[in-house]
Formats: sequence, C-alpha cells, structure tokens
Amino acid sequence: MPKHLISVRDLSKEDIDLLRHLSKRFRGGERETLEGDVALFFLESSTRTRLSFEKACRLLGLRTYYAGRGESSIEKGESLRDTIKTLQALGFRALVLRVPFVLFPYEGYKGEEISLINAGDGTHQHPTQGLIDLFTAIEVFGSLENLKVLYIGDILHSRVFRSGAYLFGLYGAKVGVCGPKTLIPSDLSPFGVEQVFDSVDEAIEWADLCIWLRLQEERFTESYIPSKESYFLQFGLTKERYKRLKGYFMHPGPVNLYVDVDAEVVYLDKSLVLKQVEMGLYVRMAVLYWALKDG
Amino acid sequence: MPKHLISVRDLSKEDIDLLRHLSKRFRGGERETLEGDVALFFLESSTRTRLSFEKACRLLGLRTYYAGRGESSIEKGESLRDTIKTLQALGFRALVLRVPFVLFPYEGYKGEEISLINAGDGTHQHPTQGLIDLFTAIEVFGSLENLKVLYIGDILHSRVFRSGAYLFGLYGAKVGVCGPKTLIPSDLSPFGVEQVFDSVDEAIEWADLCIWLRLQEERFTESYIPSKESYFLQFGLTKERYKRLKGYFMHPGPVNLYVDVDAEVVYLDKSLVLKQVEMGLYVRMAVLYWALKDG
Amino acid sequence: MPKHLISVRDLSKEDIDLLRHLSKRFRGGERETLEGDVALFFLESSTRTRLSFEKACRLLGLRTYYAGRGESSIEKGESLRDTIKTLQALGFRALVLRVPFVLFPYEGYKGEEISLINAGDGTHQHPTQGLIDLFTAIEVFGSLENLKVLYIGDILHSRVFRSGAYLFGLYGAKVGVCGPKTLIPSDLSPFGVEQVFDSVDEAIEWADLCIWLRLQEERFTESYIPSKESYFLQFGLTKERYKRLKGYFMHPGPVNLYVDVDAEVVYLDKSLVLKQVEMGLYVRMAVLYWALKDG
Repeated sequence: MPKHLISVRDLSKEDIDLLRHLSKRFRGGERETLEGDVALFFLESSTRTRLSFEKACRLLGLRTYYAGRGESSIEKGESLRDTIKTLQALGFRALVLRVPFVLFPYEGYKGEEISLINAGDGTHQHPTQGLIDLFTAIEVFGSLENLKVLYIGDILHSRVFRSGAYLFGLYGAKVGVCGPKTLIPSDLSPFGVEQVFDSVDEAIEWADLCIWLRLQEERFTESYIPSKESYFLQFGLTKERYKRLKGYFMHPGPVNLYVDVDAEVVYLDKSLVLKQVEMGLYVRMAVLYWALKDG
Repeated sequence: MPKHLISVRDLSKEDIDLLRHLSKRFRGGERETLEGDVALFFLESSTRTRLSFEKACRLLGLRTYYAGRGESSIEKGESLRDTIKTLQALGFRALVLRVPFVLFPYEGYKGEEISLINAGDGTHQHPTQGLIDLFTAIEVFGSLENLKVLYIGDILHSRVFRSGAYLFGLYGAKVGVCGPKTLIPSDLSPFGVEQVFDSVDEAIEWADLCIWLRLQEERFTESYIPSKESYFLQFGLTKERYKRLKGYFMHPGPVNLYVDVDAEVVYLDKSLVLKQVEMGLYVRMAVLYWALKDG
Repeated sequence: MPKHLISVRDLSKEDIDLLRHLSKRFRGGERETLEGDVALFFLESSTRTRLSFEKACRLLGLRTYYAGRGESSIEKGESLRDTIKTLQALGFRALVLRVPFVLFPYEGYKGEEISLINAGDGTHQHPTQGLIDLFTAIEVFGSLENLKVLYIGDILHSRVFRSGAYLFGLYGAKVGVCGPKTLIPSDLSPFGVEQVFDSVDEAIEWADLCIWLRLQEERFTESYIPSKESYFLQFGLTKERYKRLKGYFMHPGPVNLYVDVDAEVVYLDKSLVLKQVEMGLYVRMAVLYWALKDG
C-alpha cells in the first residue's frame, strides 16, 4: 500500500532515518525506477517545490501531470476525497498537493491506493521543507544534540516552522523563535519552543543555526507589521547581523530581498540557501520512492 | 486525413461502435503506438477530462503540451482558425480543446491536417463524456433498447445532456428529464426527450438509469434557483432517494456535494461514478486513436 | 559554459550565421541530442513561442517544465537572480523566459551555469522572433542587401520591431516604419530606421517586405488610437492593399483580424505568416542547441 505524507508528525524516527538514507543514495547518483502517473496540483505559486517534485518524479521514471491555480476541479468545488477517488480511478499513483488551506482532517484519505503528498498546506505543514532543513543541518553539523536552532520572522503563518521545529526537536535540538509580537503564536508549547526572543540581536548570539522565514504577505489578512522597512531593520538579516552570525543561516525561499534578508548576503559563506534547494531534489525523490515503492 | 470530434452528431453509428470496440481493447490492455505532438488547451478548469486525455495521449506514445486558462493566444483574441493553422505549421497532430464558448460553426476547421477534439465547449457539447456514459450503460445493462434514462438537474446549461441524450436515443433508450422549470430548455424536441418530470420522486420511479448533472454555478448569469439547500432537497440525490433508485445513477463530476448528491451515497453500490471515470481513460484513448491512426 | 540570449545585440554576425546554419540542418531533419532539464516560464500568454520552444526542447531530448502566469515564485516577488540560482541548484540547464517587464540590466545573470533565453520581455526584445523574420526573409529573397523592409503599426510597443530592425540592418536591408504618430517612438535613430511614412499606401509602394505588427492592446495604458475600425482602415492590411503589395508580408502573430490584417488575406500567396511559424520551431532548436551544446 502506498504511504502518505501529510504532516511530519506522521513520520516515525525510523521513517525519517530511512528518508535521509534514501536522500543520500539519490544524491550519490543511485537510480531507482518506478512506473506510473503522478499528478502535481499546485493551487499556490511555487518554483522550487514544484520543480524539484516534478524533476524527482521524472528521474524516478514517473510521468507527471501539473495543474496550477484555477486548473483543477478542486477550484470548481470538488472535495479532496472526490479528487483522490477520481485520480485513483484513472490509475494515478500519487497526488502531490499544494493548497492554501489546511489538509485536515485527512484520516479518510488514508488507506486509499493513491499516495497523498503534502507540498505545503496553508499555514499548517510543509513536511518536505522540514526534512530538507533537518537533513541539511545534519550534513553541516553532524549531531543536532543541543544544537540551538532559531526561527526568525513570521512564525505565526509559517508551515516551514511548524514542520521543522518538530523535526529538530525530535533530533535533540533546542528551538528558539524571534519575531514581531504580532507574528508569534500565543501558545508555543505544541512546537517544543524553548526560547522566545524579542531582540534578534540577542537571539543570533544564542543560535548556532538561524532560519529566516519568508514574510508571507499573501497570507496577511490585516496589518501585522508597521512597514517592511522597519521589519527589515528590526528582524531582517542585514549585512551587519550577517557578520555577527555564529554559524549558518537558512531560508526556505523565495527570499523577500531587503525584507527577510539583504540581497548581498543571500549567497555568502554562512548561507545554506542553495544547499537547501539542492537537497530539495533528493528529499523529494526519497519521499516519492518511500511512498510508492511497495504500492 | 485526421478525423475531428466536435459534436456527437458528427459520429455515425459505425463510428460509435468502432469507438466502443477500441475502448474495450484498450481497457483489456492492448497497446497501439502513435507518434507526434498533441496540444491540450483547457480554458476551463478540469481534473478528470484533462488528466484522462493527457494520460491517454501518453499511453499512445504522443507528446503532450498543456495550456490552462490565460496561457494560450486564444485568450489574446486569436481566432480558432488561426490557432489551428499555427499548430499545424508547428507539426502538431491534434488539438484537444475545452472552451467556455460554443465551437460553432466549425466546418472551416475540417479538412485540415490536424485533428480538433472537443473536450467540452460552453453549454454545447461534451462528446467524450456522452460516449463514456453510453458505453458505461451498455456495459451495465447490455442492450439499451427501451431503457429509461433520466437526466436530473441543470438541463439548460448541460453539454453532458446535449451529447448524451442524442447518443442514448441512437441506441434505442427513452430519455426523460427532471429539474427546476428555470433550468429546463423551453424546446426539448431537438434532444429526443420523451418525458418531462416535475417531481424527482416520480421520475426516479420511472427511470432505470438516473444521471444527475452538475449544478454549474460558473455558467449562471442570474439566479435560477432559490437556494442550493432547497435545490438539493427538491432535486438532489438524498440518502432517502438513493434507497428508492431502481437501477443505477451516474454523475459526470465534479459532484457538488449536498447540492447534486449526498456525500455519503456518491460511491455506494448503485453508483457508476467511478466506472465513468475509469471508462474516461479508455474512451479518450479510443477517440485519439480513431482520429489519428490514418492521419 | 552555456550561452545566453537576451537581446539580438548580444549576437555577433558569426553567431547569427551559425544559428541560421543550425536552423537549416534541423529543418532538414538532422537530429542532435542534449540531456537535462529546461524550465519555461511564460508570465504572458503565448501559443506559438511557447509550443515551438517546448517542442524544440523535446526534439533535442531535453525535459521541459512549463509554468504559466501566477505559477512561479517570480510572481511571489522572487528576484530573477534568485530564480536563476534556484534553477541552477536544481540542476536545470536553461530558463526560457517570457515576462511583461524588461530584462535589464542582466549582466549579473551571465557567467552562471544556466542559460537564460529571452522569449519576449515587455516592449524590449523578442530575439527569436527577430531571427525567424530574418531567416525567413533570407530564404525568400536570398540576399537582403538594399531590401526595403517596412514595419507597420504599433512600433512603439513592439519588441518584434526592436529585435528585427537591428538584424535586418545588420544584413544590409533598409528599414522603414509606418503607423499612427502616437505609436511611433520619437527617436528612431537607435533602430537604424531610414524612412518614416505617414501613409501606409505610399509605404507599401516603397517596400519589398511588409511586416505588420500586432496592435498590442494588452500594453496600452492609455488611448493611442481613435478606434480599431479606423486603425484598420488607415493602417491595416485590407484586401485592397493586399493586391498592391509588391512583395510579401509577415506578421508575428497572433493576428488581430480586421485590426492588423483582413481575415481573408492572412494565408494568401503573398503571406509568409505560416512560414514564420514553421521557421520558429527550427530557430528555437538552433538557439537551444547553440546555447547548451558546450554547457
């Protein structure tokens, strides 16, 4: 039976270790061959997630069918259950899905013959990005035991944070957050957050790894920040802060230049941004292979 | 020369029997190989029609090029004649086209070296869906002679009805309709309708096969029904009505849950919904092969 | 290292001659095989440019990934630099890009490991269309020395004119323009224009080759013409003017029927419109091969 990946909480530590092992094998040039059809429905814009999923499918021998915004019947009001039944009746093996809403509750979809893979659902989860950040960190730091990982910026709307914080916690890291008070969830206990910082300058002194998040203006329904300029000065990765970073920084992309990060430091030595993108291809190959190999 | 499929009325009974024969062969796993390029222009959202056409092309060895809403020059005002000439000059073999307007008059497009296949045009025709419904009914009932087929709901805007009613009539079935008075065409004579029912409860006592149509809100320019809730109670397939169905029901999808059909009965035993979807792949393979094999 | 094609001014005469040579070889049925992945991001609608680029990629053995309007992170505000870095990190070999804005300045993108190919950028350049028009003219006329080439219509917004006029000048042709005063750039000296005509009837007596441009209403921010009807009568290719053409006419497509050109003359004998489309496939194969073969 195919496996699903809706939330990182669906994964056991054994699953995650296996996915890391598979990612490394694919990165090393090993090839595995699957057969069949995969639909990629992206109801939100995406470059890196979409292209890496689609390329991953093709490298594995899967045929891909991409539908963007306004192109699938989900946007004519078809329920996800019915879309999944339809794809299954057409002989599809997986649906890679990015949607602006939360994939919840989803128990009903499991047990079907088609794999449902979450490529980002609203402000809920982005499990493959969480895995990318975890595996990139393990590659750079080795053990994550007691590593101090700091998420900076729009914590409230961030599915990257929700997926990543859980995974880092599972591997023994300590997770802190820093951002405008309006963009910090009032209850951080579900995410295993150990530290909340008001000042990003204090926070980066504490952190071994800083993960700047994208200010997701497309999710803002009201004004959370006074202005982008003041946000950048108060919380962004400026050139001056870059110099003071103890370790590395990540960003899930796309970067809002001069809002999240200064354009001049995005690709400097302490940046893991391109390592994350590169890892993305192998993580998605691993997830697809793991989900479908016994299906 | 390639063949075209704009309306079911273009098809002779021999064509239809051949298409059914081809569908069965493809369903049985036979493979035929064509070569070349097929453009799929879908100016309206679609999951099942698009994916089944695209998968059908690929299983036949054809390369596919999909363009969604806002992505082709048709939406810059290019005439269909000129789009077809362009595709032909680029060496394309077929254009599979879904558009919100009526493909009429189309005589001018015939005789070209490229096949034009209608995947749904406005409220006019959806010939492959008509064939799907016909072939699924033949599979289930054997002969259609005197079979009572009932279309329920938004008859006025339904290209599924316009294509299917003609085909069912051609195979000896009796066609009835039922729906809100505002959604029944004033003149039903072109469609061979023998019965018009006001009450869906009476109608389903008459019918051997019920085809619930989709309430196509995207085509409504004014208010045709008092409310979706009252429409569902008056005309929808409720759990209670499901029990009283004599035979089977179909729906072309996507289903408006609790408007057209109760979510709990969509996939129960009397439903042919998934059979229709499955048939879709083989019907589209048959149509493409029929249109292009001598081209 | 891969080559880029942003503007025709990037090309030496040797490059252009080589591209023409390659186009002829591909047209003659020769095949070359490349490997890898190409992204096609089209932020504006397109049929011929997109399909010919995508088909060209596939005939060369390249895997294609198409993203239309609203589907890439460029439209979430990602800078082109960052999109290119991302594609490169995912192992892509080329980005074919159509955008509504000017790709300028672009020096920063060069020297990367991925080829950037301009498929039309705002009102700036459309280099492959310029090459198509040049090569089609050479095929029809042989030498272009002193050939009189006339661009008619919306010169101001035309990237086709900006790319083509330069190329025709490079091959010894004389370039004239004709159009409403509001749609003629005030300074024509950068484009090597030798003649400006007020009257299209005088102009077509002068010209050996007339290139009607598309009235690009999608770029109009104010009213440039009194009405489409009067524009057609004053500047369009009417049936009457068609008879008086000395040589041939071109149009980059899509044609605005009865605005740019009368529907009845689009494909008559003096038309090179379909030759241009056909040439498009081979020019794009040539550009891709030239850009990537040593990459």
